[in-house]
Amino acid sequence: MAQPSFDPGLTQQYTGNLRRAINKDGSFNVERRGASWRQFHPYLHLINASWPAFFGYVLAGYLVVNAVFALIYFALPAGEIQGARQAPYWQAFLDDFFFSAHTLTTVGYGNLAPVSNTANFIAACEAIVGLMGFALATGLLFGRVSKPSARIGFSQNALIAPYQDKTSLQFRIVNLRSNVLIELQASAMLMTVEGPAHARAYTPLALERERIYFFPLTWTVVHPIDESSPFYGKSAADLERVQAEVLILIKGFDDTFSQTVNARYSYRYDEMIWGARFKPAFRVDGDGRMILDVNRVGDFQPVPFQARQA
Amino acid sequence: MAQPSFDPGLTQQYTGNLRRAINKDGSFNVERRGASWRQFHPYLHLINASWPAFFGYVLAGYLVVNAVFALIYFALPAGEIQGARQAPYWQAFLDDFFFSAHTLTTVGYGNLAPVSNTANFIAACEAIVGLMGFALATGLLFGRVSKPSARIGFSQNALIAPYQDKTSLQFRIVNLRSNVLIELQASAMLMTVEGPAHARAYTPLALERERIYFFPLTWTVVHPIDESSPFYGKSAADLERVQAEVLILIKGFDDTFSQTVNARYSYRYDEMIWGARFKPAFRVDGDGRMILDVNRVGDFQPVPFQARQA
Amino acid sequence: MAQPSFDPGLTQQYTGNLRRAINKDGSFNVERRGASWRQFHPYLHLINASWPAFFGYVLAGYLVVNAVFALIYFALPAGEIQGARQAPYWQAFLDDFFFSAHTLTTVGYGNLAPVSNTANFIAACEAIVGLMGFALATGLLFGRVSKPSARIGFSQNALIAPYQDKTSLQFRIVNLRSNVLIELQASAMLMTVEGPAHARAYTPLALERERIYFFPLTWTVVHPIDESSPFYGKSAADLERVQAEVLILIKGFDDTFSQTVNARYSYRYDEMIWGARFKPAFRVDGDGRMILDVNRVGDFQPVPFQARQA
Amino acid sequence: MAQPSFDPGLTQQYTGNLRRAINKDGSFNVERRGASWRQFHPYLHLINASWPAFFGYVLAGYLVVNAVFALIYFALPAGEIQGARQAPYWQAFLDDFFFSAHTLTTVGYGNLAPVSNTANFIAACEAIVGLMGFALATGLLFGRVSKPSARIGFSQNALIAPYQDKTSLQFRIVNLRSNVLIELQASAMLMTVEGPAHARAYTPLALERERIYFFPLTWTVVHPIDESSPFYGKSAADLERVQAEVLILIKGFDDTFSQTVNARYSYRYDEMIWGARFKPAFRVDGDGRMILDVNRVGDFQPVPFQARQA
Repeated sequence: MAQPSFDPGLTQQYTGNLRRAINKDGSFNVERRGASWRQFHPYLHLINASWPAFFGYVLAGYLVVNAVFALIYFALPAGEIQGARQAPYWQAFLDDFFFSAHTLTTVGYGNLAPVSNTANFIAACEAIVGLMGFALATGLLFGRVSKPSARIGFSQNALIAPYQDKTSLQFRIVNLRSNVLIELQASAMLMTVEGPAHARAYTPLALERERIYFFPLTWTVVHPIDESSPFYGKSAADLERVQAEVLILIKGFDDTFSQTVNARYSYRYDEMIWGARFKPAFRVDGDGRMILDVNRVGDFQPVPFQARQA
Repeated sequence: MAQPSFDPGLTQQYTGNLRRAINKDGSFNVERRGASWRQFHPYLHLINASWPAFFGYVLAGYLVVNAVFALIYFALPAGEIQGARQAPYWQAFLDDFFFSAHTLTTVGYGNLAPVSNTANFIAACEAIVGLMGFALATGLLFGRVSKPSARIGFSQNALIAPYQDKTSLQFRIVNLRSNVLIELQASAMLMTVEGPAHARAYTPLALERERIYFFPLTWTVVHPIDESSPFYGKSAADLERVQAEVLILIKGFDDTFSQTVNARYSYRYDEMIWGARFKPAFRVDGDGRMILDVNRVGDFQPVPFQARQA
Repeated sequence: MAQPSFDPGLTQQYTGNLRRAINKDGSFNVERRGASWRQFHPYLHLINASWPAFFGYVLAGYLVVNAVFALIYFALPAGEIQGARQAPYWQAFLDDFFFSAHTLTTVGYGNLAPVSNTANFIAACEAIVGLMGFALATGLLFGRVSKPSARIGFSQNALIAPYQDKTSLQFRIVNLRSNVLIELQASAMLMTVEGPAHARAYTPLALERERIYFFPLTWTVVHPIDESSPFYGKSAADLERVQAEVLILIKGFDDTFSQTVNARYSYRYDEMIWGARFKPAFRVDGDGRMILDVNRVGDFQPVPFQARQA
Repeated sequence: MAQPSFDPGLTQQYTGNLRRAINKDGSFNVERRGASWRQFHPYLHLINASWPAFFGYVLAGYLVVNAVFALIYFALPAGEIQGARQAPYWQAFLDDFFFSAHTLTTVGYGNLAPVSNTANFIAACEAIVGLMGFALATGLLFGRVSKPSARIGFSQNALIAPYQDKTSLQFRIVNLRSNVLIELQASAMLMTVEGPAHARAYTPLALERERIYFFPLTWTVVHPIDESSPFYGKSAADLERVQAEVLILIKGFDDTFSQTVNARYSYRYDEMIWGARFKPAFRVDGDGRMILDVNRVGDFQPVPFQARQA
């Protein structure tokens, strides 16, 4: 096997049994500890939260701020909020709460209104708190919806099959969305567990083509298995023994978001099919129009194949 | 013809009669199927929708949300919305609808106002729904107007003409807008249908210059037709037989949007003029000022020309 | 003079007397004609407008929309807007105008309020028009203030002076703002008018160093005048005869805006000083702190100098 | 020591005793003078201000604008603001102030409302001032929270220790946040004070690996100390005599913000440990999951070490 000299930013030092390095959703199989609260970045958290969680935070914030101001109004002498009932106590608090909501959202019907100077001053503060709070929510909402997110579909399996006059490892990708991606780049490396010390080793995999200009259809990324390949002369059993995992990084430029997007993926030894090739994922209709079926990105068919021996 | 070894991300596998690969508006001639609703990205859809469609969505959303809350208020016992008429039924519903609109937009005149706790609570919810909804609309509007969009004008034809001491294929581009584009890059490739199997082949075209620093005027992109060119020794009839199409990608940096922008275009065999050269698209007035006429980007004049034979 | 083979995106074809190619503010000396209204991009226009013009547009839009809705309310039968006076006519219109303003800005005091169904419906429309309009203004304001804009200060003159063991052309730049710029790149080329046809020629100028990592102080960009330089063996009179202009592009990464910024500049033959070198623009105080004076970026002192002859 | 020929954008000219070039927070030890007010960029200032300062500016602006409009209403004849008390004077002003707040925030309860044409006109102006002001604040808030900010943790010390078959200088970095950084690049250079003139010299340091694809764990950046290294044959005392400082620039792509981020750092001679190596900062739990402790990025242990002599 070629010299495993390349460190992709993962580790060479660990020697035990490890889960896969890159999960199917592109995240890394790493748990972080010891980061202090000072490193906590609320924006990152709120941008990456699920939609229910995000709206939950907004609603909770709205209720808490509302209730805090309601308590302040409630603490004022009776009559400072015009139209608020004074009894029973819970009704008085509810009216203060509703006045607070009228103010925080700047809806201000006026059936409840501040008459004393104190109430007016507090209401003026609450209105600006509301405006700044909803400004923040506006920014976060925009950040969430405008976050570029390529949805690259990967074939479920990597195939090892004849390619022109040699063997190759292949996988296929497709753009799951209809936005235009251009100038895609792929890089791949093989992670293995080597030698008696079970140390992790990383070997970059040469690709037949590392970059394409356009990506309207599928792209079959090909690693030729020649003498310089770490797959050369290996069998499926060999790959299982070294717990082979192919790590993949795809980068491209999203023409709608005008930003660089990327996708990460990996294939483990048990996701590689020996002796198969991809079937076309598109056809042409009678009008000469190409019809692409994104669900067929992983479709393959067996081919006669005899792995070369080293 | 030179070896057609380059895959630009389109396909080599299709063999039938095909429409042009890149449409005149830069989109690809591909129809997508099978993408599940989970891949649908509402932001992409709303960003790329036409303006009437966008405002239609906003208005429809406004009406629907308004009507839903109006129905809720309508279901409340009479008298919970101060100022709303009780009869006839349609008038009661309309008043609830208008109260809902006052609340959703936070205009809150107060001639209609919630008096019961239930109505107040629903109104407080509606106000925050309104604020979040218009926050979303704000973000989408900003995303739409701030989307970088280079408008590169291409000459209507590519010209095949003498260039210095050899023949060349030329096309000319101009910035249709007044924003400053810098560091433009061009790449071009030839797509042909080759051999008995009618397989598609892609050949990159070497350009005399692939990159310019400034782009205040026009840029004539030149592919010299020398021995290494796939056009070498070809006639117009040869190009038609292989259904030649020149695919073009232009990239640049937009100094106003501070982002990378790109444009795609293509010339088919029937859009190439043999024996012509571009006329200047600008002149200089008496004050030494350059006057550029962007409409003349495609102006050409015939030149004596004898295609070289291979 | 070296072969003028490089086209930077300006033109080689014009042969008359021309003003300088790049103005002192970095814009190009080109006037554009013939761009149709379809190429007009309102966002670009509003982003690049001056602040008074921008606020003028906002105010004008506010007044026009207000007045249009006021006219609609004015056309309604008397009494549909609660609280609006009916006479005299101008007062009735003014009250409708003020009600329109209350609605458009969603301030909605309620002393003027819609009572009829028609008025209510129009007011509901006006409120959403107002919300969308101010959403647009919000986006434009954000686009304006967040637009990255490097302010690179250039020395007023380029200097031709001894440098180590050869002559060189030098200019000096400084970051006029306090934001951090990193990874600056410079490129320069010489534009001349050559030969009997007075054709424009462009020659790239090799720089001693094209890129620096950090830019907290000044950067003296140096073009060594050796045998490969188009300045080699030229005198000041030679440069004037060919109307020499050095065109400069500076690019860098702005760490505050997280975006690439650039600056353009040029030095004409009459802005080059023969026999001078820059004086340091900074000093170190007693505490070992470097003090940079950005106003002294162009300070130079004469040095004995004998131009080398070709 | 190798030829110190590289200028990273700092200066070679200063010869006195200087503080460290790059502070521990990544800022440069440079004070700027002479920048005119025309170069002051309010957005940069407000984006980089602390949160208390930012909210202080917003609050101050709110109060000032409120007070200015209150004074204008106060100057109107009595009775133009419906509901405002006329006496005593301070109460009249306070009611005008509260009316102004109701208008600026568009809360518009209506218990205070403009009745005269003049008051109505001024209120219409104030409402749009308020909307634009809060639009600006919304933009600034979004700019602040969405500003990409990598928090790269650096080991407290750089280590000089055996590495494979040679000596090396090493430091280690970790991503302090949980966002995904990819394609990290590192560059380093040595700053020394050389010769009798005490001139500053900069020497780039070759790195064993300048770029990694993924960064989920730690990255140990290694400069091999071979014959081409400026550290070759140097002792700790040598480094102190030349006041050695290693300047570091880390760049990467932040997948959450979709933008390039960077970090700057430096190690002085007194922060370099001779004869030590880093201890792993992560372990693997029973489930094969990697557990990273970001606090241990700087943990090291002594190793037997004999510095090689030149």
